[in-house]
Amino acid sequence: MRNTARWAATLGLTATAVCGPLTGSALATQGAAPAALYAPSALVLTMGHGNDAALATPERAVTLTCAPTASGTHPAAASACAELRGIGGDFDALTVRDDVLCNKLYRPVVVTVDGVWQGRRVSYERAFSNECVKDSYGYGGVFTF
Amino acid sequence: MRNTARWAATLGLTATAVCGPLTGSALATQGAAPAALYAPSALVLTMGHGNDAALATPERAVTLTCAPTASGTHPAAASACAELRGIGGDFDALTVRDDVLCNKLYRPVVVTVDGVWQGRRVSYERAFSNECVKDSYGYGGVFTF
Repeated sequence: MRNTARWAATLGLTATAVCGPLTGSALATQGAAPAALYAPSALVLTMGHGNDAALATPERAVTLTCAPTASGTHPAAASACAELRGIGGDFDALTVRDDVLCNKLYRPVVVTVDGVWQGRRVSYERAFSNECVKDSYGYGGVFTF
Repeated sequence: MRNTARWAATLGLTATAVCGPLTGSALATQGAAPAALYAPSALVLTMGHGNDAALATPERAVTLTCAPTASGTHPAAASACAELRGIGGDFDALTVRDDVLCNKLYRPVVVTVDGVWQGRRVSYERAFSNECVKDSYGYGGVFTF
């Protein structure tokens, strides 16, 4: 094999090795949709009054997309995404802030989160004793909408 | 009662009757969130390869908000919202377009829709025999993402 041909073959193999993982079967789609280079993160968060999402009418619902950039109708999308990245999308890891004081009124609200976080499906529900308590979870304001 | 007082009382009652329905218990919230004058519509749509959403990795996920205006990461948010309004948010009512020809390749994709449509929770799943068939449902491109 001549030197030029050998170089060409080496370059070809390198290109395959580098680009191969980006064009796996999951992305070799039939339709016109663009191939994604990141796992999707798109969520719908709802809140309603009650203890149980199955019974509570959703009074507010916002969307939150965190990839490629923070967007959506969530009022604090950027900080909510930053916080979710910090806790790896584990909503149970959101803890109560210590700089907020809430009264003990029992008027329960329930929050749901559905969709996808970094390629994994999310279906989450959590009830709080009142709306102030809900808003006091997490520094990024994930539940403040 | 003097005339002025009677007018004042009438005006007060009218104001209560007009504004009352807008300030029902659902909107008398504790937090700083604004009261909503429309039922929320916010959805996350995902697609993945497979027959069953529980087993399929979500490869793409987009958000779709239809109130107050069409927005979200859905590539055709405006026409998708228009179509969904036309069918009252009933995804099963989406029918196949007759101007699209698809081959018979069996490479199933599954679409999920979660969130809220005009105040009602949505949890929908539908499998198609391939991605072309998925994209051929509905004229608004709801599933084309």
